Amino acid sequence: MLNIEHIGIAVSKLSNSIPLFEKLLNSQCYKIELVESEAVTTAFFKTGETKIELLESNTEDGIIARFIAKKGEGVHHIAINVADIYAEMERLKKEGFILLSETPKTGADNKLVCFLHPKNTNGVLIELCMKKKEA
Amino acid sequence: MLNIEHIGIAVSKLSNSIPLFEKLLNSQCYKIELVESEAVTTAFFKTGETKIELLESNTEDGIIARFIAKKGEGVHHIAINVADIYAEMERLKKEGFILLSETPKTGADNKLVCFLHPKNTNGVLIELCMKKKEA
Repeated sequence: MLNIEHIGIAVSKLSNSIPLFEKLLNSQCYKIELVESEAVTTAFFKTGETKIELLESNTEDGIIARFIAKKGEGVHHIAINVADIYAEMERLKKEGFILLSETPKTGADNKLVCFLHPKNTNGVLIELCMKKKEA
Repeated sequence: MLNIEHIGIAVSKLSNSIPLFEKLLNSQCYKIELVESEAVTTAFFKTGETKIELLESNTEDGIIARFIAKKGEGVHHIAINVADIYAEMERLKKEGFILLSETPKTGADNKLVCFLHPKNTNGVLIELCMKKKEA
């Protein structure tokens, strides 16, 4: 595990939360990206080597909309950079963690990602991520 | 705002969660510290420049015990390193954020800390922190 790549925060409306986090962090949102596979729109901020990723659902019953309905706005997941996502998935599976996909998926920011089931990680949704190799 | 100093995670029992996070992060817990002012025991892990801080309540009705009773185990707060905590507190107050203490308090890891009310930060409890100057 290399470092915390980003902290994902579920928000109801990016149009409210982007200016809020710009004031809070005293730093501009540098990218807005639609992640079609997850039906979310993401907005990124830099804080040292770790990004803050705000997540707004694009559908009424999407993952982020359901999270907010249940728990309210707040931290949704923590993403950790790994050097080799395939080796880490194998290692964690052997340690008894539950992977939410058998193979890595394409996430925001040109990454390969895999989530771990939070019931085995003290309620924290962990995302493994690795920058995609250039073709 | 310099970087994410640590992510605080509320856990019921450090004796379960320390070995769990050692397996998850593939890294040893390097410090356990009692923070008397908050009635919590903390356990630290390194992941790049950001630490993971596990928090166990020392009392049945402490902040962390109440958090877990309400929301379950999970991410409790995000701590952000600042260069000058007094200047940041002043700036954020002017921006309309609510500080949970008028002056910085002493936190774990030899830091001066101040929390922001999560109702103004999309449900995320934010801790500002600054390393104490040597006397």
